[in-house]
Amino acid sequence: MIETPYLLFLGDAPDQLAAKVAQGIKDWRPENAVGQFRMAGCKADVGLQDMTLQEAKAAGARTLVIGVANRGGYISKEWRKVLVEALEAGFDLASGLHNLLRDESELMAAAQVHGGTLHDVRVPTDAYPIANGVKRTGKRVLAVGTDCSAGKMYTALALDASMRERGMKSTFRATGQTGILITGHGVPLDAVIADFMAGAVEYLTPDNAADHWDIIEGQGSLFHVSYSGVTLALIHGGQPDALIICHEPTRQHMRGLPGYKLPSIEAVRDTSLQFARVANPACQVAGVSINTQHLSDAEATAYCAEVEARLGLPTIDPFRHGADRLAEALENI
Amino acid sequence: MIETPYLLFLGDAPDQLAAKVAQGIKDWRPENAVGQFRMAGCKADVGLQDMTLQEAKAAGARTLVIGVANRGGYISKEWRKVLVEALEAGFDLASGLHNLLRDESELMAAAQVHGGTLHDVRVPTDAYPIANGVKRTGKRVLAVGTDCSAGKMYTALALDASMRERGMKSTFRATGQTGILITGHGVPLDAVIADFMAGAVEYLTPDNAADHWDIIEGQGSLFHVSYSGVTLALIHGGQPDALIICHEPTRQHMRGLPGYKLPSIEAVRDTSLQFARVANPACQVAGVSINTQHLSDAEATAYCAEVEARLGLPTIDPFRHGADRLAEALENI
Repeated sequence: MIETPYLLFLGDAPDQLAAKVAQGIKDWRPENAVGQFRMAGCKADVGLQDMTLQEAKAAGARTLVIGVANRGGYISKEWRKVLVEALEAGFDLASGLHNLLRDESELMAAAQVHGGTLHDVRVPTDAYPIANGVKRTGKRVLAVGTDCSAGKMYTALALDASMRERGMKSTFRATGQTGILITGHGVPLDAVIADFMAGAVEYLTPDNAADHWDIIEGQGSLFHVSYSGVTLALIHGGQPDALIICHEPTRQHMRGLPGYKLPSIEAVRDTSLQFARVANPACQVAGVSINTQHLSDAEATAYCAEVEARLGLPTIDPFRHGADRLAEALENI
Repeated sequence: MIETPYLLFLGDAPDQLAAKVAQGIKDWRPENAVGQFRMAGCKADVGLQDMTLQEAKAAGARTLVIGVANRGGYISKEWRKVLVEALEAGFDLASGLHNLLRDESELMAAAQVHGGTLHDVRVPTDAYPIANGVKRTGKRVLAVGTDCSAGKMYTALALDASMRERGMKSTFRATGQTGILITGHGVPLDAVIADFMAGAVEYLTPDNAADHWDIIEGQGSLFHVSYSGVTLALIHGGQPDALIICHEPTRQHMRGLPGYKLPSIEAVRDTSLQFARVANPACQVAGVSINTQHLSDAEATAYCAEVEARLGLPTIDPFRHGADRLAEALENI
């Protein structure tokens, strides 16, 4: 559990895209961020107030979150200086970088002296159980994809926002680094030991009120040979009542796997549902989410209409059209 | 890679079943063991010559393998005394126990002083890659089960033996602790980090001669909600050319999951094949292996005949009937 609210560290981000973690926090949990911290040369701006460490502290910030990818895969001298100052000022630090904060001796030392906590969200913090498959109370929806990076996290966050707007009870359950930083908690599923994957998902989505929905962030794809095991653990550990299928229609092959074609939406629907019903016989597919970023408005509308007619399921791009129709479909489950 | 041959440590095994790792080594790789070491009160006997550490050393033994489960989950004072003496005598130690050799300070110290290696086969030793899905040369067969503990390792080892007898080229590829101790190498797949599971299987079964078969030890079941992700990683990382379906016909529910019924052999056949064909479109199901330990001879024969007629696939219990008919089926693939 990362303490909120945050000050978002944008560092010396070379462009806006490099700050996409910070942008995600600003977009989806603006109440979690009091401001942004930018260094000389920073080319990103997520539209929050620029603050010094002291100003942010005075505004109530508890954790400095590294909201930017680092260049070259190491923590530069300039970054380290700011991070040490933040620890001295009483902040915790949180990071999803590949190279860990805890591997930096200067940060470890400062954290110990000043009583700060270093959160490396790529590393699991809990001892997860082996899944027991026992039916839990409350409802769950899981995003499954035809491929990796098909828009599963975006879909889940947009669905969460739509459901809250409609007055439904929902919680976004993060299973990846960005999602964990956005919400302050979750399970970094790709870093969990194989035997405990499904148990970690059970742990992440415990018993809840009968009308409460956990919106579980998906990972990988049943048809992506590098990561399919993680996806199946999500389906079996998640016990979803509903599935949303995510698809990016212009992709030529599975991400990172030239020579591997994408499965059809129908194949993902049928296979995911077969597996989901092992753990929850009542599971159904609630809708389809299309990532139309590479299509024009007209193409996007036509594509969604075609899939909707073919599958008989509400089909939208949550970025263009919002996720309301998916939320509506869940209201009827 | 654990150095062979072994001296098999049976300790103070309370019964024969407690020594099943040693029995597996004796049954499947007798050339890997020069003898057995038994302490006062040992109730197990795998039928090898009893040896002192010195006698085994003189006979060429390199590693003392803990071939017995420990009572109460800790390494007793009596065991520790023998293990330290073995390190002093120049042995390496190998263990599949839950509690690790390396966590015993006395053993660590003795290993350092005497230059011995402590092999805890529950802990992965290599940095496995992310699976790349690139087609490898050589052939592979994978055992998949309707449930956990359905006889997958036994089937794979029996198939390996039959294939060698027929003059086929084959290698048993261990993915669990017992299999690793039997052969001296492998990947403890249930302890691998989620993102690297399929890559670990690719690493375990590299390019090989066109007529060489890797016989990959299966784990879990696609329909076992606790471990299904591990099974799918084996199917996608293994790129099998052939599948053998393993089934135990008297089981009332999935192992450890009351309330979860076993899938049909047909469901496992169809689903496994669909996934296997993502990585290897030529994959086919070669046969069925039935664990008939709870059936009479007549019942076992009748059950296998019924499955064989229903599925049109060679169906045997490798323990009762040998695995020859499975090996024969693979010769024609």
